[in-house]
Amino acid sequence: MKNSNTTNPSPQGRVGGALTVDVCLSPYLYPIYHRNDTIVVVIDILRATSAMCTAFHHGVDKIIPVATVEEATEYKKQGYLVGAERNGIALEGFDFGNSPFSYTTEKIKGQTIVISTTNGTQAIEASKHAYQVVIGAFTNITALCDWLKLQNRSVLLLCSGWKNRLNLEDTLFAGAIANILLKENTLFKSGDGALAASFLYKSAQDNPYKYLRNSSHTERLAAMGLKKDIKYCFTLDQTTVIPVLEGKYLVKLSQ
Amino acid sequence: MKNSNTTNPSPQGRVGGALTVDVCLSPYLYPIYHRNDTIVVVIDILRATSAMCTAFHHGVDKIIPVATVEEATEYKKQGYLVGAERNGIALEGFDFGNSPFSYTTEKIKGQTIVISTTNGTQAIEASKHAYQVVIGAFTNITALCDWLKLQNRSVLLLCSGWKNRLNLEDTLFAGAIANILLKENTLFKSGDGALAASFLYKSAQDNPYKYLRNSSHTERLAAMGLKKDIKYCFTLDQTTVIPVLEGKYLVKLSQ
Repeated sequence: MKNSNTTNPSPQGRVGGALTVDVCLSPYLYPIYHRNDTIVVVIDILRATSAMCTAFHHGVDKIIPVATVEEATEYKKQGYLVGAERNGIALEGFDFGNSPFSYTTEKIKGQTIVISTTNGTQAIEASKHAYQVVIGAFTNITALCDWLKLQNRSVLLLCSGWKNRLNLEDTLFAGAIANILLKENTLFKSGDGALAASFLYKSAQDNPYKYLRNSSHTERLAAMGLKKDIKYCFTLDQTTVIPVLEGKYLVKLSQ
Repeated sequence: MKNSNTTNPSPQGRVGGALTVDVCLSPYLYPIYHRNDTIVVVIDILRATSAMCTAFHHGVDKIIPVATVEEATEYKKQGYLVGAERNGIALEGFDFGNSPFSYTTEKIKGQTIVISTTNGTQAIEASKHAYQVVIGAFTNITALCDWLKLQNRSVLLLCSGWKNRLNLEDTLFAGAIANILLKENTLFKSGDGALAASFLYKSAQDNPYKYLRNSSHTERLAAMGLKKDIKYCFTLDQTTVIPVLEGKYLVKLSQ
């Protein structure tokens, strides 16, 4: 969330006069990259952040992202609609799993729902003290980049990965964003993480499926019969919404 | 070091019957990737692991890698020759910095020396409980890969990075190794970290300097007038030695 008590001497996240774009490849590494004046984009392409964008596109009012199943259970007892997923599987006793298609129904419209996933909600938890935390996915990439370019602030692209390890699809997406920001805004200086992800994206962009077919989580979801989800999560610009963290809630960013 | 008391049910580091090759992009992430049946290759291209290979090539007997300047100072008091570097600069009061050219002199021949650097010796410290820890650099790449292919064991390529952040040159080198192992040994299955580093290397291999000229540490060293060091550290196969950790000592691997 926006932190008005920033102690960083550089109020706009500038280093040596330049704004920075960098990529953090695991929530476990976040403390190393944290700066309290930087916008963090949380990325969990398969499927948490893709699903969150879809939920807001379909009219959800607020999402409470929680890191643990225990918290999710507590909210369920309180009567909330709750999505809970671990290892790609919707947990029993909850209302949704992690599929974007779970979040297209009328029942979420106007509601405050709760989501806990294997990786994405851990990344939100890790970065919650950043200047601002927004949610990114291929499904909102253009709106997100257009907004980031206007903020005049350093950006950290935080990949949720898989149980704190790097994953390929989040890295590629971070590279896509870094590539756009570095190409279209010469104010940005790149960290090595953003350079690596950007090079990776450029070499993959002609045939991203070739790159991703061997990735561990794509294989995992395909084996679970979720190819429709994978295809959706790699489709650009399904929405213009940008979810943003305000206190404990994700809400739709007012632009 | 080799750990005969491994508790892992898979004595050769196999997962689902396959050997794995993966890349860990920061010493800070090492606990996430640790398995006690895996060979770890520690990588700090600019310049610790390049310098260590050079030192063994020029006849050093043993190297004691230490993580802190305090430990280095203690060894200095005991009369050891000590290399100590932080942020690319040789620390005052010690015998060497981090330049491979410091380790070509007659004075190291047959000696046990001590080295402490900004990143590389931290990575050795982090991974010291792996099954075996060896030292990799472009300068020993072919000998190292030939040896790794014969071990029938899973391999983790541990990049030292820069102060726990990813750096480009270590990632590229890890990708070069992953690429060789995956291409030439079909027993190996790749983790996403190895896939990403391997793709990165393949897109960089025609022009690695184009990739590296914007990397943070290349810029840093070039600004310090160390282009000769950079060029040396990117030169393949200057030696066939493979330094290996035995207890607190790095020694030359007997093959």
